[in-house]
Amino acid sequence: MQTTLQMLKTHPGQSWSDPQRLAGAIAELYTCAQVCTTCADACLGEKEVQSLIPCIRANKDCADICLATGAVLSRVTSTQTDVLKGVLNACIKACNLCAAECGKHAGMHEHCRVCADACNRCEKACHDLLG
Amino acid sequence: MQTTLQMLKTHPGQSWSDPQRLAGAIAELYTCAQVCTTCADACLGEKEVQSLIPCIRANKDCADICLATGAVLSRVTSTQTDVLKGVLNACIKACNLCAAECGKHAGMHEHCRVCADACNRCEKACHDLLG
Amino acid sequence: MQTTLQMLKTHPGQSWSDPQRLAGAIAELYTCAQVCTTCADACLGEKEVQSLIPCIRANKDCADICLATGAVLSRVTSTQTDVLKGVLNACIKACNLCAAECGKHAGMHEHCRVCADACNRCEKACHDLLG
Amino acid sequence: MQTTLQMLKTHPGQSWSDPQRLAGAIAELYTCAQVCTTCADACLGEKEVQSLIPCIRANKDCADICLATGAVLSRVTSTQTDVLKGVLNACIKACNLCAAECGKHAGMHEHCRVCADACNRCEKACHDLLG
Repeated sequence: MQTTLQMLKTHPGQSWSDPQRLAGAIAELYTCAQVCTTCADACLGEKEVQSLIPCIRANKDCADICLATGAVLSRVTSTQTDVLKGVLNACIKACNLCAAECGKHAGMHEHCRVCADACNRCEKACHDLLG
Repeated sequence: MQTTLQMLKTHPGQSWSDPQRLAGAIAELYTCAQVCTTCADACLGEKEVQSLIPCIRANKDCADICLATGAVLSRVTSTQTDVLKGVLNACIKACNLCAAECGKHAGMHEHCRVCADACNRCEKACHDLLG
Repeated sequence: MQTTLQMLKTHPGQSWSDPQRLAGAIAELYTCAQVCTTCADACLGEKEVQSLIPCIRANKDCADICLATGAVLSRVTSTQTDVLKGVLNACIKACNLCAAECGKHAGMHEHCRVCADACNRCEKACHDLLG
Repeated sequence: MQTTLQMLKTHPGQSWSDPQRLAGAIAELYTCAQVCTTCADACLGEKEVQSLIPCIRANKDCADICLATGAVLSRVTSTQTDVLKGVLNACIKACNLCAAECGKHAGMHEHCRVCADACNRCEKACHDLLG
């Protein structure tokens, strides 16, 4: 997050939100994408993979949408709030569903617990940016 | 699009939409992502790059959101309509803005005209899936 | 592929390869990424998912590497052949492995057969660009 | 990086490299992708954008290849070292070029200096994994 904040502070344009808050959200988005990618893979390695399929699906959608949202937020020049709000709202839905799916297995699989936490933090950071 | 349709038809799960329509939308999404990536690069190569910056920005957001949407639609197993609608709505906004930005330069730059057309087709395909 | 070719032909820069061949390779790369994404999902929906795990893994790596390669090839301005060759070589390996994994299940699952074909075509197109 | 390490440690499969080293490399890859995306955007906002075009191009290729590499490394199940080595080598080339391009402007633009540092760290982390 420190590197992202440095980047935003030395950017010639002005960010549409407080740089600290924006950098924090970007960090959560990339972390969430990474964690979801590993969670899908960890679920795939569990013996009861059949019961984890909705979780794997939610993980993958969440990873893809977080990465797109992270890239959109990483750009400051010529930002259009309409697109921004649209992708943040999509991301909130994806994080919310993934946290719920992973939450069902959090007692059994530690990777699902860590992933649900990352999704919850990411959802909150997206909400805070919209608010 | 034929290959995508073959894939959907031989998938063990049932797609949540008509396979022909779904395959058509997926094809438009991946095409739009590719075309936007080349349009951003072509704009960067034009002498008056300064005036094309909002277009380049719109191109990149559109490419990222189209790819995420295309990946979400490419999965049929355990689809959750809430996430689906969220990302389709974000994509409609991104395509709409990009078509408008590229449209401003369509008379001058043929790559912007081709890109605006791809965005318009993609937006329509996303609308049709939601409808 | 026609749209991609139009884009390359109206680009202000000069492509480092024959536009027809380059557009063909780009089309195979995006198609392969899409097909691999659906194949991973289709495998996940099969009853014997356990035996398909190496195939799912290969599908996902192949999809990610094809998309990165497709984006790199979609840019013509200031191309550096070293990076280009590196990513094309990585893509050839990913397509080759994925075709082999999917090939093992091609007799049983039509989606694996279609995916193996897409990987083979993509690998060939990358080879032809390097050659 | 702590979250990534937690994920790798609770994964049911065994990672092909030391988890600490692997988690460190994954963190550098996602950070580098994010930083390159913002650097391309910051360059686009500078008055002398014309002279920064090779830097913008290198930034984008590097971001795309780092994300693909980060995703491949984030998966532990059924890893094939051939694909792994291919994408790590491509990533090393992309980071190396981007560090060199950004390095040319590091005295003038702080965002280019921060980006060159991120690329250098990422290249080193990829090398260490291969070695």
